[in-house]
Amino acid sequence: MNAIGEGWFSEISEMWPGQAASLKVKSVLHKEKSNFQDIIVFESETYGKVLVLDGVIQLTERDEFAYQEMITHVPLCSHPNPKRVCLIGGGDGGVIREVMRHECVEEIYMCEIDERVLEVSKAFFPKVSEKLINNPKLKLFHCDGAEFLKREQFKSGFFDVIIVDCSDPVGPAESLFGRDFYESAQAALNQGGVLCAQAESMWLHLDIIADMAAFISEINFKNVEYSYTMIPTYPSGSIGFFVCRKGDDKSCSSQPRVLSEEASNNVTYYTPQIHCASFVLPKFAHKAIYKHL
Amino acid sequence: MNAIGEGWFSEISEMWPGQAASLKVKSVLHKEKSNFQDIIVFESETYGKVLVLDGVIQLTERDEFAYQEMITHVPLCSHPNPKRVCLIGGGDGGVIREVMRHECVEEIYMCEIDERVLEVSKAFFPKVSEKLINNPKLKLFHCDGAEFLKREQFKSGFFDVIIVDCSDPVGPAESLFGRDFYESAQAALNQGGVLCAQAESMWLHLDIIADMAAFISEINFKNVEYSYTMIPTYPSGSIGFFVCRKGDDKSCSSQPRVLSEEASNNVTYYTPQIHCASFVLPKFAHKAIYKHL
Repeated sequence: MNAIGEGWFSEISEMWPGQAASLKVKSVLHKEKSNFQDIIVFESETYGKVLVLDGVIQLTERDEFAYQEMITHVPLCSHPNPKRVCLIGGGDGGVIREVMRHECVEEIYMCEIDERVLEVSKAFFPKVSEKLINNPKLKLFHCDGAEFLKREQFKSGFFDVIIVDCSDPVGPAESLFGRDFYESAQAALNQGGVLCAQAESMWLHLDIIADMAAFISEINFKNVEYSYTMIPTYPSGSIGFFVCRKGDDKSCSSQPRVLSEEASNNVTYYTPQIHCASFVLPKFAHKAIYKHL
Repeated sequence: MNAIGEGWFSEISEMWPGQAASLKVKSVLHKEKSNFQDIIVFESETYGKVLVLDGVIQLTERDEFAYQEMITHVPLCSHPNPKRVCLIGGGDGGVIREVMRHECVEEIYMCEIDERVLEVSKAFFPKVSEKLINNPKLKLFHCDGAEFLKREQFKSGFFDVIIVDCSDPVGPAESLFGRDFYESAQAALNQGGVLCAQAESMWLHLDIIADMAAFISEINFKNVEYSYTMIPTYPSGSIGFFVCRKGDDKSCSSQPRVLSEEASNNVTYYTPQIHCASFVLPKFAHKAIYKHL
């Protein structure tokens, strides 16, 4: 078992010891070492093109919609009228594509530490990255997301929605999983604003998620919840998000704003019903996460 | 990549081409060829003991609860007072364990084609198979499940709930995925009775599921729905069930009967809330399955 051997890519990591998901490789299209991480793109036998960062699958053409739609539409539809959105990470552009389905959004500040991820996505994943190009609403920054959110400009509530689409807490995204980051994010949100941050798998990292729930509950969010999506090519087949609202305690799990007809026609996973259902957790996960909330 | 090599077990199959889930093997505990299939039990590094039939993971000690609880409590809690239950397959005994949490159940007819699966489960998975032993409510049969349900005794409504806990449609379970089987199951249910049958993954076999929905909709069930559970060690991380009610069109997706306090305390995945949420499908799956229903 090695990263790419005998025609298969295997995702082996200390973050999920004893298990590995593998995809059959048709051809390796690109390999590079950026300033921040190893980047691989390969054409798989049955999942289309695949983007791998530091040995971990970030997206496949076959199932990327599940993650991109849920991490975007759950927070955006939890806000009555999001105008200013911040995206931390998300260099592949999939979240930007989904944010752009909300016509009310006027400005998107995107901070992706690794410029090379955008370039690779533009080169190999045109359908994912399409809204990274010629997008007058997009303001692009390449720096550490945790530092970015601390800027004076944002400090007293600037964004309606903040989305944190990052990789795992080992590597360049580490700073995005700590209390300090959540405090900056809280400060940078308007009253009623919503933070949605990638928060690992309840099947693998319930201890990390519960620890995060504990410190998030001490920050001045009025409502903190956990939502998830199925996604076959992420470890253990699903991934979750903290969804936190500042300023009022209205739950994000019910009565979402409805997507426009055009947007509804163009999504593959998201519906208002799945929005609500995504907050309903298996008993073991609910118990571990909500004991702090 | 081979079934057990270099310390890993890899699940490779034509049913999910181009992908494979692997678990690290501590030691192989048992290997045999029964009259029906290859049976392997191994101790894994991080998922406890694992049961493999014909190269496909049937259960791991770490996540078996998700499947066993959902395939059992969703139909049983959809029935106001289930007294007579039929289980087709389920040789490991996990479903029987869950059925026994419902004190109202008086008789369980279990038909498992391969007696060896029970024996292997009793030997290696005592916590899964505990209710296979000294269980006065259990009536055990070893024959083809499709033939079993056609018995004269059952033909005009005999069971309150029928659960089909089978392996994939390639191998001994093939006959359990056809129209003929669903017709026999329909006949063997009382008015208001509920069938819950394993029905593959929406991420891998939506075409098979949609075809099944088409023929099930032509049979005289009054209500047909599709529910799912996450389960990390099944291909693509989730598996679904057809949940069909005979005799009245009351949906199984709302207002489930509540488990006893003792049962509620002893389950790990199932709650009334997850019961309802399990019927809410991502848009692409809903569209494909319900176009026939």
